Amino acid sequence: MDTHAIVVGVGTELTSGLTVDTNSPYLSRRLAELGIVTLSHQIVDDHVDRISEALLQATERAEVVIVTGGLGPTADDLTRQALAKAMGVELVLDEAGLAEIAAFFRRRGRAMNRTNRVQAMLPAGAEALANAAGTAPGIFARLGKARVFVVPGVPAEMRRMTADHILPRLTDLAGGWRLAYRTLGVFGAGESDIASRLADLMGRQVNPLVGTTVAGGVISVRIIARAQTEAEARRRADETAQIVRERLGDYVFGSDGDTLAAAVGRLLGDRGATLCLAESCTGGRIGQLVTAVPGASETFLGGVVCYANRVKRDLLGVPEALLTAHGAVSKPVAEALATGARERFAATYALAVTGIAGPGGATEDKPVGLVYTALAGPAGVRVERSLFPGGREAVRMRTALTALNMLRLDLANVRES
Amino acid sequence: MDTHAIVVGVGTELTSGLTVDTNSPYLSRRLAELGIVTLSHQIVDDHVDRISEALLQATERAEVVIVTGGLGPTADDLTRQALAKAMGVELVLDEAGLAEIAAFFRRRGRAMNRTNRVQAMLPAGAEALANAAGTAPGIFARLGKARVFVVPGVPAEMRRMTADHILPRLTDLAGGWRLAYRTLGVFGAGESDIASRLADLMGRQVNPLVGTTVAGGVISVRIIARAQTEAEARRRADETAQIVRERLGDYVFGSDGDTLAAAVGRLLGDRGATLCLAESCTGGRIGQLVTAVPGASETFLGGVVCYANRVKRDLLGVPEALLTAHGAVSKPVAEALATGARERFAATYALAVTGIAGPGGATEDKPVGLVYTALAGPAGVRVERSLFPGGREAVRMRTALTALNMLRLDLANVRES
Repeated sequence: MDTHAIVVGVGTELTSGLTVDTNSPYLSRRLAELGIVTLSHQIVDDHVDRISEALLQATERAEVVIVTGGLGPTADDLTRQALAKAMGVELVLDEAGLAEIAAFFRRRGRAMNRTNRVQAMLPAGAEALANAAGTAPGIFARLGKARVFVVPGVPAEMRRMTADHILPRLTDLAGGWRLAYRTLGVFGAGESDIASRLADLMGRQVNPLVGTTVAGGVISVRIIARAQTEAEARRRADETAQIVRERLGDYVFGSDGDTLAAAVGRLLGDRGATLCLAESCTGGRIGQLVTAVPGASETFLGGVVCYANRVKRDLLGVPEALLTAHGAVSKPVAEALATGARERFAATYALAVTGIAGPGGATEDKPVGLVYTALAGPAGVRVERSLFPGGREAVRMRTALTALNMLRLDLANVRES
Repeated sequence: MDTHAIVVGVGTELTSGLTVDTNSPYLSRRLAELGIVTLSHQIVDDHVDRISEALLQATERAEVVIVTGGLGPTADDLTRQALAKAMGVELVLDEAGLAEIAAFFRRRGRAMNRTNRVQAMLPAGAEALANAAGTAPGIFARLGKARVFVVPGVPAEMRRMTADHILPRLTDLAGGWRLAYRTLGVFGAGESDIASRLADLMGRQVNPLVGTTVAGGVISVRIIARAQTEAEARRRADETAQIVRERLGDYVFGSDGDTLAAAVGRLLGDRGATLCLAESCTGGRIGQLVTAVPGASETFLGGVVCYANRVKRDLLGVPEALLTAHGAVSKPVAEALATGARERFAATYALAVTGIAGPGGATEDKPVGLVYTALAGPAGVRVERSLFPGGREAVRMRTALTALNMLRLDLANVRES
């Protein structure tokens, strides 16, 4: 039987969208380490009744409730009052807490404000939690079947109190579970295609848990395994990762936060090979992705952003006749860009892209989204034609990733043969 | 009487803390522009009953409920089912929606997967909302006294659908107010500096409302004016925008969604001038920003990503002696890169950057974040030295923007004289 948690974030700066709540995700990750599953994050504004109601509901549904925020000294800090209301008790002054707050101000050589006194108030029957990183003490209370922790919303204080108080008081609930995470980066197939290949693994509530997310044009397959020992959790996660790899084959480019460009860089490095680029429609995007990887200089020489036709001609030696006969967005020009770049940079591989990113520039034969991607290497030059959907940036990003993936597949296959 | 909203975010990747929810804050900010106050953000895991319960509770408390996520084609995408359950109806196939999804796949030249069919299912009585940025249609329904919108969790799709469907269907709740928006793009000063110059305008609850946000390294000053007529709202917004422009002077580079690169492109176009680039540490980022602007080809010729030293020498003519004597990250090399690029591309202006983005590559004299930015133009060449804080990507982005801003200020001043 799982232990469940609900995290409550208090503050109108959160509900109004002025601040992004990073506390709740942090707490969920820390709780997951103990095998405690977070059911929901409840972000509520600075309003006593709404905070109190959120607390009551949370304590009905979860054994652990963690509240961040609303412990400051000002009139809109209402978590203390809301907890007392939910518990049906009064706020009382905690003399030890008051002494600690006073000591905090003495250490900083500052006068304690009268309003700070409220920070030493506690719901009757609750316990103060010392705050080693700030003024406001936290609160621990039992409400219904739940353990309730209240900590400040300041991230540094929240993190410190999580380590000092929350996790130590929950170890008995961990049920001895240990968790292991794996993430596989996937490119070249749609999310629905990937999901249908993993349908049986992605059923809910199984261990290991398998899910997919899409970000920046690539798909991540996430695996979370749990077991009584860390070694066993890791073994299960690895086992499932292996099954996913087998099912998805070449679509998997890397693991645990690898980017496609990092995977390409590693393959190039393994072979002692170098890369250069000729980018037309992407305008530098491929270079930017490649050089986002620390240490890219070991395999990446550079590139030419050949936006104007005369740059294709003057810097990369594309014959004028080719440009006139076929247009810049064509198979022969993509080929010439790749071979021209490979020669001039004296690189092992050259990737070249030319296409119509839109919104302008399309003709009847050459619609927006039409892209030629060329790869020149020791074995010659190869061109792929694609038609990408979406707006200008989507086409450009997709083009950049497709080019990198073309090189990745080539390097992976060469290596195996 | 305020109109209230509750935003529901669906996904185990959110409740487990693997992903930070930025959708709900975004939606709260957009709703606030209509005067709609968000009471809470409810983040729930991929579980039909819990999503359904969150929807029922939300619709009891708020007139507007917006749900993000859980519309994908996979087994753990359950928002559709949960909404049907909350409404007490069945899911039915929306033929028009199915045709749209099929068309999306045809355009991409890919086979539509059987699992994508589920994305065309709707709770009976609900309405599909076209998704111009992805596969999954959104959903609009009425539940109790509330209007419920469901949109995908992918931020780009969520934002697009907010503009296309959500805000237009809520304007009647704005209380007869007409709103006018202005956004000014600001670069070259910190957010706190900007805020202190605009302190009197940024007081809360005033009309026009003035606020700042930071994204992608630039600050946006947003102005929202409301009045009984559109003309009056626009007049007020323009008046405040003018005051902001006067206060911030040269820091303002553009308005209403302009990027720094777009502002530079316009200034170049006005003068019939052209631009080329020599990028070392940014690896193509400047080119990517410049070519993200549709029509960039009118003023942008191209660039060289000169990552390896021999590319700086062979393609841009930087003397080997200069590289040996001063190192690649130096004032003389930045200068040589800019003049070399300007000659080879026969451009009016050349921007060159060379720096240490980290984490490796630093020496005692040359720390991470050290960057030289050079601008070569008809009036000669000029170099600026900067020391940027932050990690690799922050340094690279800051470098790219600083280079573009250097050209912008130059073009703006030349024009005025």
